[in-house]
Amino acid sequence: MALPKKVTIYEVGPREGIQIASNPIKTEDKVAFINTINETGISSIETVSFVSPKWVPSMADADEVLAKIEKKSGVEYRTVYLNIKGLERALNHQVTIDGVLIFSASNTFSQRNNNKSTEEIIAFMPNWISAYQEAGIPVDQVAVMATFGCNFEGHIPLERVVQLIEKVDHLLNENGEQLKKIKLADTMGWANPEQMKRTIFAIRNKWPDAEIILHLHDTRGLGMANAYSALQEGVSHFESAIGGLGGCPFAKVKGAPGNISTEDLVFMCDEMGIETGVDLAKLLECVKLAEGIFGHDLPGHLHRGGLFREIRPKTWAEMANH
Amino acid sequence: MALPKKVTIYEVGPREGIQIASNPIKTEDKVAFINTINETGISSIETVSFVSPKWVPSMADADEVLAKIEKKSGVEYRTVYLNIKGLERALNHQVTIDGVLIFSASNTFSQRNNNKSTEEIIAFMPNWISAYQEAGIPVDQVAVMATFGCNFEGHIPLERVVQLIEKVDHLLNENGEQLKKIKLADTMGWANPEQMKRTIFAIRNKWPDAEIILHLHDTRGLGMANAYSALQEGVSHFESAIGGLGGCPFAKVKGAPGNISTEDLVFMCDEMGIETGVDLAKLLECVKLAEGIFGHDLPGHLHRGGLFREIRPKTWAEMANH
Repeated sequence: MALPKKVTIYEVGPREGIQIASNPIKTEDKVAFINTINETGISSIETVSFVSPKWVPSMADADEVLAKIEKKSGVEYRTVYLNIKGLERALNHQVTIDGVLIFSASNTFSQRNNNKSTEEIIAFMPNWISAYQEAGIPVDQVAVMATFGCNFEGHIPLERVVQLIEKVDHLLNENGEQLKKIKLADTMGWANPEQMKRTIFAIRNKWPDAEIILHLHDTRGLGMANAYSALQEGVSHFESAIGGLGGCPFAKVKGAPGNISTEDLVFMCDEMGIETGVDLAKLLECVKLAEGIFGHDLPGHLHRGGLFREIRPKTWAEMANH
Repeated sequence: MALPKKVTIYEVGPREGIQIASNPIKTEDKVAFINTINETGISSIETVSFVSPKWVPSMADADEVLAKIEKKSGVEYRTVYLNIKGLERALNHQVTIDGVLIFSASNTFSQRNNNKSTEEIIAFMPNWISAYQEAGIPVDQVAVMATFGCNFEGHIPLERVVQLIEKVDHLLNENGEQLKKIKLADTMGWANPEQMKRTIFAIRNKWPDAEIILHLHDTRGLGMANAYSALQEGVSHFESAIGGLGGCPFAKVKGAPGNISTEDLVFMCDEMGIETGVDLAKLLECVKLAEGIFGHDLPGHLHRGGLFREIRPKTWAEMANH
């Protein structure tokens, strides 16, 4: 397939970065971070998790953060919740709520992350569907954690991923809903670019009309190669984090790099002539702010490598195709 | 094209890493680093530069390092030199000397790096050819620095790269030599994966039988995506550095990430079923040693992300294709 003409970036840095931060982040800094991202052209920002402050103390001020940020027209503000109580908290805010059913393809990771097996998570899904339906939200998305491998279980067979999505798809159909979006998360950085292609083929083969959303981690350095591999297959929806923030608190490896970095991904798209609508210079301002807030260097590359803009105002694609 | 079955890794970390190191590295540490790389299965190690200690004090002990390292059978030990005096120093050692003619596609970079324009460098090449011929070394390789862009000049048109290689090719033919290897260096991290493909096509179009060797930097985060793009075109010779050591002292951006990391590249190849002959666990021992010697964290990923071996003894390719 050809590269997509346009890519949509879903920024997850505020939620995923703050959730895993080793130092406490002040509410005002969280708000400032999100307000700065507002100026970049990014059209979706994952802001907070509605989780128990007992388990994730860094999210104790989630309601306050959401109340205080500037809500910009054209930007969708998203949240994460792990139970229906969390969904109910999200419903109190002016945020975008996806009708998404989430499970982990790794049973062990599911136990550690949610204290339930993958089967138990799926068995509970009719309750989620009801809760979404009561709120008037179409349930059209499935999100698969640990799609490409797991630090606890190792190999996750692609057949298993497809079978589990099929199960959820049947549940949706039984409840009058239709699967339109499939999010595949490489939660612990196991994917390689050939596996990426094979996975996309298998998903497209079963659900040719579903939109694929990728959530990629750069744990072992293959994040951007995986993103390029997916772009070659026409995938055009990516979750990423400013500065490469994030990681996973239950992912076994401490200090491992987090999500693929938004600025590196936007830079790659820009250079290859793929439109993102995101301003790289403004993204780098967010990285600088985030390094101050988080108190350490971030693993993304572009903020150290530097922009081309002053040296070569056009992109490679513009220069090469003049 | 299909991915290659086998990839050859040329380790450049000792030379390129030490050359740019901010702290002085002891001779014995340099020797220990190279001796440890000897155990990984890597078949080529770039060890030292023969340059003036006035300009590059970290290479003042180049002769001593080469005399003290263990020379392992099956491993080629390479060196770098910028003038014929340097070549003569290299000839005093039991090292592999490529008959290579080097120039920068960026004139400004050439001036800064060599104090000569690209044209002057090419005009001087007959002297290099004579020097190699006197030493009985076939002159069969051209190496192009700043092939994909330059922090000083910006865009480097592909046509210019091809024309400059053609000039050198003519020089070689006039002197009874034949171009067999073309090394393309992304010295300042400007390449993107689509540019990589277009460049490889253009080179193959003119020199279908020449072997392409890539020297990639991860300055702006696209190093591994560029490597994957090149692998897709069947390129099977890569220079990389353990831990992502290196960078370029004349490359304008301080603190920018260096070469693509050997362990991340070998990991990607392993996972996709491409043979490298290199042992990942032993590479990670080299990273650990290098972090001690250089006194700081290295930018490669795998040493933080962790190996799969204990969790899943086989590679993805083996699991998926069983």
